[in-house]
Amino acid sequence: MKINGKAYRTIWLREDGWSIEVIDQLKLPHRFETKALTSAEACAAAIKTMMVRGAPLIGATAAYGLCMALREDASDENLERACKMLAETRPTAINLRWALNEVASAVRNRPRTERVAAAYARAAELIEDDVETCRRIGENGLKLIEEIAARKPGATVNVLTHCNAGWLACVDWGTATAPIYMAHDLGLTVHVWVDETRPRNQGASLTAFELGSHGVPHTIIADNAGGHLMQAGAVDMCIVGTDRVTANGDVANKIGTYLKALAAKDNDVPFHVALPHSTIDWTMPKGVNAIPIEERSADELLRMTGRLPDGSLATVEIAAPGSPAANPGFDVTPARLVTGFVTERGRCAATEEGLLSLYPERRKA
Amino acid sequence: MKINGKAYRTIWLREDGWSIEVIDQLKLPHRFETKALTSAEACAAAIKTMMVRGAPLIGATAAYGLCMALREDASDENLERACKMLAETRPTAINLRWALNEVASAVRNRPRTERVAAAYARAAELIEDDVETCRRIGENGLKLIEEIAARKPGATVNVLTHCNAGWLACVDWGTATAPIYMAHDLGLTVHVWVDETRPRNQGASLTAFELGSHGVPHTIIADNAGGHLMQAGAVDMCIVGTDRVTANGDVANKIGTYLKALAAKDNDVPFHVALPHSTIDWTMPKGVNAIPIEERSADELLRMTGRLPDGSLATVEIAAPGSPAANPGFDVTPARLVTGFVTERGRCAATEEGLLSLYPERRKA
Repeated sequence: MKINGKAYRTIWLREDGWSIEVIDQLKLPHRFETKALTSAEACAAAIKTMMVRGAPLIGATAAYGLCMALREDASDENLERACKMLAETRPTAINLRWALNEVASAVRNRPRTERVAAAYARAAELIEDDVETCRRIGENGLKLIEEIAARKPGATVNVLTHCNAGWLACVDWGTATAPIYMAHDLGLTVHVWVDETRPRNQGASLTAFELGSHGVPHTIIADNAGGHLMQAGAVDMCIVGTDRVTANGDVANKIGTYLKALAAKDNDVPFHVALPHSTIDWTMPKGVNAIPIEERSADELLRMTGRLPDGSLATVEIAAPGSPAANPGFDVTPARLVTGFVTERGRCAATEEGLLSLYPERRKA
Repeated sequence: MKINGKAYRTIWLREDGWSIEVIDQLKLPHRFETKALTSAEACAAAIKTMMVRGAPLIGATAAYGLCMALREDASDENLERACKMLAETRPTAINLRWALNEVASAVRNRPRTERVAAAYARAAELIEDDVETCRRIGENGLKLIEEIAARKPGATVNVLTHCNAGWLACVDWGTATAPIYMAHDLGLTVHVWVDETRPRNQGASLTAFELGSHGVPHTIIADNAGGHLMQAGAVDMCIVGTDRVTANGDVANKIGTYLKALAAKDNDVPFHVALPHSTIDWTMPKGVNAIPIEERSADELLRMTGRLPDGSLATVEIAAPGSPAANPGFDVTPARLVTGFVTERGRCAATEEGLLSLYPERRKA
């Protein structure tokens, strides 16, 4: 996608051929800066601090982190150590573990001398696959927008999204946003209600930033507002990303997603979840009260960083002094509230049978 | 209630006997300051800018504003002009119109020379009634907390609330918070999950401030978190205030209330609404898509004021530059999602019949 007219991905191999560069998402939307990551530890820190975030991008960063660890020491011991260190950075998104496993599988049982090249080759494939996967999610999700547009010719299609499942969360295109970008590029009149997404404000800072950069009409709303807008008929469909989908179709995603799904159900608004195959956790039969939920720092609720009138950045304390805060990072939306999944292979019901219809190779004999 | 050991109400008549003093809630939780209001116009401005807020306190401030207008000019023309000006400050809360009507009714058809004294007498009654009303709401709501405590002896009763329906929203006690203060003062172990309540953060700034000042254990959470906490069994009951209840039991309240009510229903968590009689709009048969919803400034979403490390206050821009925002201030929770009402006369079902059982004088012949 483009920033100031220049095409960017969120992660790329630097000219040295082994280190990577990423967009520093901690600085967005106030500054657009990129950072070089030159070790597995730096990649782990970038994931942990959320310089990079979004389930697919976390996976891509971890994959290259593992490559860099092997470049320093290609032993089995270091492979396991680096996998463990990178996997422990964030608990909820399954793509992280999936990507590490993909790279590790590509190097295990190979001679040490071949491991670095094999790891980088597999990481590069994962990145290219992610771009192609998101593009296909876009094509498959585009039909949902086209169907709504066909039912209300000439009128704006209003889409609500939560958090950032945009190209900043992936390598390019995004998951939830891919259909929106495609619809916009095709000339359909799409408008996006962007949930602010407290406490880290990924909607107001990242989704609004990327939609604005691409020229897609959008409006930031408080996370509290979606139910009212759906009740008022101002939302045609919801579409969100996910950090982990369990075998039965339960959906872990940014905290607050569950509340929007409830409101969508109560107002007969379709609620879609866009995801690549790598987000499906086939090993977990269900998600509610089962997927580990990351508990994050209270500071994310109690402080806020923004731009002062002179353009410099400042962090202010916003809550009552001395009051504690709790900050669960994700919630789980039961499959019964999800209208359907949009994946790179097409659309399906949010059920085990639905998922297996798209991924029949996962069917147990 | 007490601030730094000193008992305060949120509004009181000054020593001059005609002007009023209020707590400047725009400065909370960063500064505790009081402001004198010496004209109807100043009262209107205090309501409009939300220096005072909360349905009952808005009503009390408007009542004294009308007294001050009559003190300057007790004519019928000025009475109507001042009523109109004060009523137009905020559209959603019905208490505002109710309080103005109470004072106006006390002076209409009286000689001009008696009007000022009659208005001040009625306004003083309204204030005292509000304190007593909230105290009784507290007593009636206390039973809900006691019932839960009896079912889990020794364990903490976890109550979730949204926005501020505390003593800062009323004259004293609060509506939703009154039962919590009484339970705490009686030695029951109560803990409050305080919704931050974007975009104005009345939960994190006002509810957390007043609970903290009174010593009630509480934890600030993002508005997004309540559904997850209910799913995890961490919420025993929800209790909120309201700006207007229609004859069928629909509840207008701070934006986001509807989402919490949906989550409560989905998880079998009781969802109670605390209100004084003056919040019931008997003239509106239903509330969903009927009660006027105030559309507030986008700035409330796009900027945030807080404390810098040196203790001074600063306002920062927090969203993507150039992105627009929409800011509906209230939503309407359908009566079907409300477990029950708590009023000064007792508890009832959130139905027309329930309300009429407590207020039989409203039954049409």
